[in-house]
Amino acid sequence: MTRALSITREQNFPEWYQAVVDGADLAETSPVRGCMIIKPWGWGIWELIQAALDRRIKETGHENAYFPLFIPLSFIAQEASHVKGFAKEMAVVTHHRLKALDGKLVVDPMSALEEPLVVRPTSETIIGDAFRRWISSYRDLPILMNQWANVVRWEMRTRMFLRTSEFLWQEGHTAHANEEEAMAETLKMLGVYRELAENVLALPVIVGEKPENERFPGACNTFSIEAMMQDGKALQAGTSHYLGTNFAKAQNIRFQSATGDLEFCHTTSWGVSTRLIGGVIMTHGDDDGLRLPPAIAPKQIVIVPMLREKPEDAQVLAFCEKLKAELDAVHALGAPLRAHLDKKAARAANKRWDWVRRGAPIILEVGPRDAASDAVTLIRRDRLRDGDKIVSTAAPRAEFLARAPELLAEIQNALFQEAKSRLHANIRSDLSTFEAIGAYFGAACDEEGGAFKGWVRAPWARPTGAELDAVETRLKEFKLTLRNIPLDQSPPTGVCIFTGRPAVEDILIARAY
Amino acid sequence: MTRALSITREQNFPEWYQAVVDGADLAETSPVRGCMIIKPWGWGIWELIQAALDRRIKETGHENAYFPLFIPLSFIAQEASHVKGFAKEMAVVTHHRLKALDGKLVVDPMSALEEPLVVRPTSETIIGDAFRRWISSYRDLPILMNQWANVVRWEMRTRMFLRTSEFLWQEGHTAHANEEEAMAETLKMLGVYRELAENVLALPVIVGEKPENERFPGACNTFSIEAMMQDGKALQAGTSHYLGTNFAKAQNIRFQSATGDLEFCHTTSWGVSTRLIGGVIMTHGDDDGLRLPPAIAPKQIVIVPMLREKPEDAQVLAFCEKLKAELDAVHALGAPLRAHLDKKAARAANKRWDWVRRGAPIILEVGPRDAASDAVTLIRRDRLRDGDKIVSTAAPRAEFLARAPELLAEIQNALFQEAKSRLHANIRSDLSTFEAIGAYFGAACDEEGGAFKGWVRAPWARPTGAELDAVETRLKEFKLTLRNIPLDQSPPTGVCIFTGRPAVEDILIARAY
Repeated sequence: MTRALSITREQNFPEWYQAVVDGADLAETSPVRGCMIIKPWGWGIWELIQAALDRRIKETGHENAYFPLFIPLSFIAQEASHVKGFAKEMAVVTHHRLKALDGKLVVDPMSALEEPLVVRPTSETIIGDAFRRWISSYRDLPILMNQWANVVRWEMRTRMFLRTSEFLWQEGHTAHANEEEAMAETLKMLGVYRELAENVLALPVIVGEKPENERFPGACNTFSIEAMMQDGKALQAGTSHYLGTNFAKAQNIRFQSATGDLEFCHTTSWGVSTRLIGGVIMTHGDDDGLRLPPAIAPKQIVIVPMLREKPEDAQVLAFCEKLKAELDAVHALGAPLRAHLDKKAARAANKRWDWVRRGAPIILEVGPRDAASDAVTLIRRDRLRDGDKIVSTAAPRAEFLARAPELLAEIQNALFQEAKSRLHANIRSDLSTFEAIGAYFGAACDEEGGAFKGWVRAPWARPTGAELDAVETRLKEFKLTLRNIPLDQSPPTGVCIFTGRPAVEDILIARAY
Repeated sequence: MTRALSITREQNFPEWYQAVVDGADLAETSPVRGCMIIKPWGWGIWELIQAALDRRIKETGHENAYFPLFIPLSFIAQEASHVKGFAKEMAVVTHHRLKALDGKLVVDPMSALEEPLVVRPTSETIIGDAFRRWISSYRDLPILMNQWANVVRWEMRTRMFLRTSEFLWQEGHTAHANEEEAMAETLKMLGVYRELAENVLALPVIVGEKPENERFPGACNTFSIEAMMQDGKALQAGTSHYLGTNFAKAQNIRFQSATGDLEFCHTTSWGVSTRLIGGVIMTHGDDDGLRLPPAIAPKQIVIVPMLREKPEDAQVLAFCEKLKAELDAVHALGAPLRAHLDKKAARAANKRWDWVRRGAPIILEVGPRDAASDAVTLIRRDRLRDGDKIVSTAAPRAEFLARAPELLAEIQNALFQEAKSRLHANIRSDLSTFEAIGAYFGAACDEEGGAFKGWVRAPWARPTGAELDAVETRLKEFKLTLRNIPLDQSPPTGVCIFTGRPAVEDILIARAY
C-alpha cells in the first residue's frame, strides 16, 4: 500500500508527526536553536485560527493592545511563586551594542545593561505594572485586555509547534473588583477556548481544572482544555488562570471601592498558542499527511488541471479559472469560500499528492473530458481511500458548485465526530485501583509512546502538599500525569485510588505532551 | 479660545505631538527603556493599517510566513556593507537562564550562549539563509515573502511611534532570477505603499529614489515615500530596496538557470512600520487632538447619549442602540461601518471631548429632544470649529443614516486634499543656489524645528563619494537632509546647486524626522 508519507502513525508516531510537518510544508527548523520557521501553509492556518479567536475575544468585550517584548529582570522577581514555579530558562538580553574588533563583529563589553532584560516568557508582570498605573477606582474596572505576541522560553528538547523556544500566542490579562467576577471571566474564556477548539479546529476537548501541582505559577486556579492525540496522549491545548490577588499584591494593583476602601484587584490570564497547530496535526492527520478542518484550511478547494501540453489545455484552464471564480463567490462556514487553482508547472499527479499531504479538504482534478462534459472529479481528503484505492467521484459542475458549502460543512463535522468518538471511546473509568492503572499502561516502555492506551478517569480525593507529590512520583514511573478534573461532574462514588479516602471528584490521568 | 489640548502646534510642535498621543490615548512609555505600550485606540489603528496593507501584499502575489526573532551574530556579519552601514545598537541575548542566588534572581553565568543572538533589527540575513536552502532552480523563482513582526534597534532618544527601540512592522523579502524582475518588484511595492498612504491613511507622499548616502546598508537602490508633516519636516514613511546580488553573494543564494548556469539571485526587501501612525498624527492632527481618516478609525461614528439620570434616559438609550445597529448594518469605504455607542458612566461633555481628542471622524450627540424628534446632532471632526465655535448640525435620523457612507468618504477625501495642498504649496523650486537655501532655512535655530519652512526641490548632478559627503556636511549645518529624487521627472534644466555641473535630475531637501 503506497502512502503519501514514508512512515505511518503505527510505525513511529513522533517520526510520523515530523513527516506530516515536512510533507505539508508547515514549518522547518531554523539555524537558531529551538526556533522554527513557520512556512506559508502553516502560517495560513495560524492566520485563520487568529482571526477566529480574535473575533471571539472582541465579542466578549476585550480590547487588543501591545506591551513590550522585554521585561526587566526585577519584574520577574516580584511574585514569589511565579519566580519559584516558572522555569528559569529564558533568553536574557545583557548588552545593547555590537562593535567591530580586528575585523570581527563582537558584543561591545561597554554596552552592558544596568539591569538585564528578559525576553517575555509571559507578560503578567509587565502588564500588571501597567494595570497598577491605570487603575485607581472601581469605575476603572474591569480591565479586559489581550495581546497577540511572540514569547520565548528556552527549551532544550524542541518539537515543531508543540515545544519551541519562540512561539506565538495570545495572552489575555484582566483585572476585576472581586473574586466572583474574576472567576466568571476565567471560566468564560475557558468556554471560548472550548468552543473555538470544537467548532473551528474540530478538536474535541475535556474542560476541567488542573490539580494544584499543575497550576500556573502564581495562580489560585488553573483550568485547561485537554485534547486526545492519536497516540493516546493528552495535549493541553489552552489554559485560563484565576490569579486571585497574588499578582495584585506583588505589584500593588489596587482600587478604591464604591465604599471608599482600598482593595486589591483580582486578576486573570489566559492563552492559546501555535501549539494548537500541533494538536490539529496529531488529531486529524493520517498516513497520507495532514487533514485540515475546512474552517482553518488556507485553501478549502484546490483545483488541479490535468494539462498535457496539448491544444485542449487552454479549454481546461479556462474551465478551471471560471470554476475558481464561481467558488470564490460562494460562502461556506460563514466566510467567503477559499478556492485555489494550482497552475504550477508540475505533473498533475505530483500536485495532487502535494495537496493530499497539505490536507486541502477537497481536491478537484479537471481534465479535458471533465471540461468538455462540464463536470469535476472530486476527492474528499477526509475520505481519501477505500482500502488502498483512492476514492474520487464525478459530479456535474453546477451540482458540485451548489453543494460545495454543504460539503465543506460535512467534512468539518466528520473530522470532529471522528475525533470525538475516539476521545470518548478511550477514556477508561473502570480501573479502580492504582495497581490496575499501572498494569494497564505498563512500565515506561520505549521513550516515545508505545501502544495506544488512551486516558483513565479515576476517583480523586484532592490530596495536597506532600501527599500530592507522592502521587506525582508514582504516576511518573509510568510516564503518567494528572491532566484535569472535568467540570460539571456528577457526584463521585467510590474511593480515591491514591489515598483510599472517599473521592470528592474524578480526575483524568494520561501520558501527555 | 479653549482647545482640547493644553498646547498648540504653533507653541511647540514636539510637545503638541506628545499631547496628541496622550490625549488620544494611543500609547504610553513603559518601564522598559525605549519601548512603548500601544494602547487599544492606537492598536486599533494599527490593526486597520495592517489589514489594508496585508490585503494588498497578498493581492500582489506575496505569501506571509514567520522567521525567528533571534539572529546569530555571525549572520549579521555576512554582508559587509550591511554590517558597516547598519547602526550597531542592537539588543543582544547572551544567556539563557536565570537563577536564584541568596534569595535574588540573577543571570546564571553558567548559561552563556556559545554564540550571542541578536534580536532582529531586520531579517535580510535570517531570511536569506532560508532562501539559500529553498532555491535551487529557476523554477523556484520568484520567491515572494512577507512577515509581520516586531524588531528592535536600540535607540537612545526615542519618540512614540516615530523612533522606539521595539517597533512593529512588515518586512517583505523576495528573490528573483534577474535585475529586471527584482527592480520591477521593488517599484511595485513602492507603488503599493504610495497607494496605501494616499487612499487609506490620506497621506500624500512623494515617491522617489534615495541618494546613495541614504541607501539601506547593502542595497543597490533604495526608494522611499516621503510625507510632509505640519511642522514642514519630512517623514520617511516607507522604503523599498533593490539589493542586487549583494546579499545573494554574501549568503550564496544561487539558482540553476534555464540554460543550466549557476547564477546569483537578485533580492529585494521593503517595509513600513508603526511609524506610519506618527505620520498620521503629524499630518492630520490639530490643536484639539487627533483627526483620523475614517478608513483607519477604529470607531468611525461615535454616539454620545446625553443622559441626565431622568426617566427619558431610557428613551434616549433605546434610540441610540437602534441607531448604532442601523449604522453597523451599513457599508462605508468598502467595509462594514464601525459605529460605537459610548455608554461609559461619565458626563456627556467629557465624553465628547475624549472623542474629539481621539479623532473619531463623526460624533453624534443625542439628547431627549433629538430622540423625540427622530434626529441627530452631528459633529464632523475635520470641521470641528468655525472660529472658536464648535460646529454641530442637526439632521433627521433617516437622512443621516442614508448619507453616513458618503459623509465618511467626504471626510477621508477632505483630509487628503488638505494635506495634499499643504504638501504641494510648500515645496519651493525657486531657490537656485545653496546660499539661497541656507538663507531661507536660516542657521540651526532651536533644537526642535522652529518656523514652518517646507521642502526645497533643487537641481542635482548626482555627486557621489567624497563630493556627496561634503554635500551632507553642508546641509547638516542647517539641519537639512537629502530626502529623495522624485520619480517621473521632466528633464531637468539648470545646474546642480552643490556642484555647479549640469543637473541630471531634481532632488528634495528638507529637515526630517
